[in-house]
Amino acid sequence: MVITYELQKECPHTGARAGLLHTPHGTFTTPMFMPVGTQATVKTMAPEELKEMGAQIILSNTYHLFLRPGSDLVEEAGGLHRFMNWDGGILTDSGGFQVFSLGDLRKITEEGVAFRSHIDGSKKFLSPEIATRVQEQLGSDIAMAFDECIPYPADYAYADRSTARTTRWAERCREAHTSPTQGMFGIVQGGMYKELRERSAKELVAMDFDGYSVGGLSVGEPHDLMYDILEHTTPLLPTGKARYLMGVGTPDCLVEGVARGIDMFDCVFPTRVARNGMAMTHQGRVTVKNATYTHDWGPIEDGCQCYACRNYSRAYIRHLYKAEEILAFRLVSYHNLYFLLNFMREMRQAILEDRFPAFREEFWANYKK
Amino acid sequence: MVITYELQKECPHTGARAGLLHTPHGTFTTPMFMPVGTQATVKTMAPEELKEMGAQIILSNTYHLFLRPGSDLVEEAGGLHRFMNWDGGILTDSGGFQVFSLGDLRKITEEGVAFRSHIDGSKKFLSPEIATRVQEQLGSDIAMAFDECIPYPADYAYADRSTARTTRWAERCREAHTSPTQGMFGIVQGGMYKELRERSAKELVAMDFDGYSVGGLSVGEPHDLMYDILEHTTPLLPTGKARYLMGVGTPDCLVEGVARGIDMFDCVFPTRVARNGMAMTHQGRVTVKNATYTHDWGPIEDGCQCYACRNYSRAYIRHLYKAEEILAFRLVSYHNLYFLLNFMREMRQAILEDRFPAFREEFWANYKK
Repeated sequence: MVITYELQKECPHTGARAGLLHTPHGTFTTPMFMPVGTQATVKTMAPEELKEMGAQIILSNTYHLFLRPGSDLVEEAGGLHRFMNWDGGILTDSGGFQVFSLGDLRKITEEGVAFRSHIDGSKKFLSPEIATRVQEQLGSDIAMAFDECIPYPADYAYADRSTARTTRWAERCREAHTSPTQGMFGIVQGGMYKELRERSAKELVAMDFDGYSVGGLSVGEPHDLMYDILEHTTPLLPTGKARYLMGVGTPDCLVEGVARGIDMFDCVFPTRVARNGMAMTHQGRVTVKNATYTHDWGPIEDGCQCYACRNYSRAYIRHLYKAEEILAFRLVSYHNLYFLLNFMREMRQAILEDRFPAFREEFWANYKK
Repeated sequence: MVITYELQKECPHTGARAGLLHTPHGTFTTPMFMPVGTQATVKTMAPEELKEMGAQIILSNTYHLFLRPGSDLVEEAGGLHRFMNWDGGILTDSGGFQVFSLGDLRKITEEGVAFRSHIDGSKKFLSPEIATRVQEQLGSDIAMAFDECIPYPADYAYADRSTARTTRWAERCREAHTSPTQGMFGIVQGGMYKELRERSAKELVAMDFDGYSVGGLSVGEPHDLMYDILEHTTPLLPTGKARYLMGVGTPDCLVEGVARGIDMFDCVFPTRVARNGMAMTHQGRVTVKNATYTHDWGPIEDGCQCYACRNYSRAYIRHLYKAEEILAFRLVSYHNLYFLLNFMREMRQAILEDRFPAFREEFWANYKK
């Protein structure tokens, strides 16, 4: 197998686990957070900065790259790693989530999804085979199976039909996938229905993917429901493979995801909120551009060792926001990504040292949403 | 004196000269280009990147910082160097050029200039004493005397009156300036009238400033006229002090400025055009975002050793522009600044090796505007 997961330690009290993910571009530690580079760049960041802050695998979006610049061009460059100058790991999503999010602009059939490009309105089509081919052209280390993401709420009949289709599409992806240098993860669906989650997990595990994602969560449902579905679903997945919760990237959900056996996460949250002037800390969110910080000469977060916190004051960063300077976005994006990557390292250390439950408890004692 | 200039070599055939500028934040080589950090940041760049590309002194704008965040706040931070995390040299302009550019929004009297803030429309006032005080608060290595910039074209009577006022204001700046850790440069005015330039130079030189700027050029006049005035003015300035041509930053004007004895230049051009997708090269300008470069896997400029050219293709950078990604601005800003800084180093080397005329000839043979 191209992608293998090595379990190093399990928490005896929760589902939390520490491990190693072996990929063609290196071995990475889990649990991990993957910064998102939607359009072949993690917004505002350079690859060296991602390396410096300890990023291991980044996620890039098949939907966006399929439309622009096109997967042919990326293949011509020698793949996404060379195109964007990133020699760490890359995971590409399947494009499924993005096309389903287009609402009226897309039409789903058994064959695949016809949609209109959000860039120029042109007609496009993605199917399990095309999404697989595109990801092979991109040359990511990990490709994702093309799935149908069930919205929340969805009734049982819809979730049932959709989950069955995701299984059929997963089979077609497995069939179409031929790259010897790329692994593929399956995506468990089933909406908020545990029996559908069970069926989906069982069918996908039988296809022997290189890893499994729990899909269709963090789509608007309450956190408690997400945690409940997660708690029910991860035990259905093989312990010898990586488990990935898509689109999750706030500290509270990361702790609770790890506690339920998740190894990998991704989210645009840290970079998106950075551009709005919001910084992430162990104590909760700080709106750096607020007037409160005009004369604040301390760092974004006391004790943080990131580049932004070691070198710049809140007062300076606030000035940069008011002046609409790009360095503001860079510094807070850096901090937020560092914060999450470091948060994952702290969790991993706690798991390795048999003190994850205490870590989790302390986290909740300090965290304000 | 806080700022001293050490002449190392003069070109026997032109006015070009190589030297060293000693400042409280280090000794820097001339001729030099100073990147512009208008609002206490060189747009899109981090200080470490400026260091890496060989930037020595950066320019920051008194007008902008006076309005936002205010010089009191910068003083509270411990000065501009600490505020923005830059330990190289800083030169601040006097704010004169910016307030005169406000047109109807400002009113000039002998006392100073009343104007409306471009940010919130509030009433503001700058005078020789205030501009000096603000620059002392900013703590730059080099402050500029508050002058009146003569527009082009201007009739003789206007230029005459204005130049006389600049002299009176220069005296008031000299009087008001007390910082023991900051030098001050005088600004020679006189418009396009050689006799006024002579009078201005004579009066300012008598005040024994730490260096001299030739002001009021690059304000819309033809290049030949600028070169002519420059050629007439620099010989009026003491050889033992640095000479600075403000607002000039295209390779052609830099070569011709150096040939006429200028040591220092600044301009927003390299970073401004970068944000529009234009890269600077020895062969002229390259609009990186053009469709021509869709499949161009070469660097912005062949042979360029900058970070952007060593790591990214024109095709990738073009993609970043089309996708409106900030990394595009970063990479081309980096390249353009590196290009100009390197261009100055090449000129300096040519002067030191007694081959500046050949350098100048070769430059013109290859350069397309």
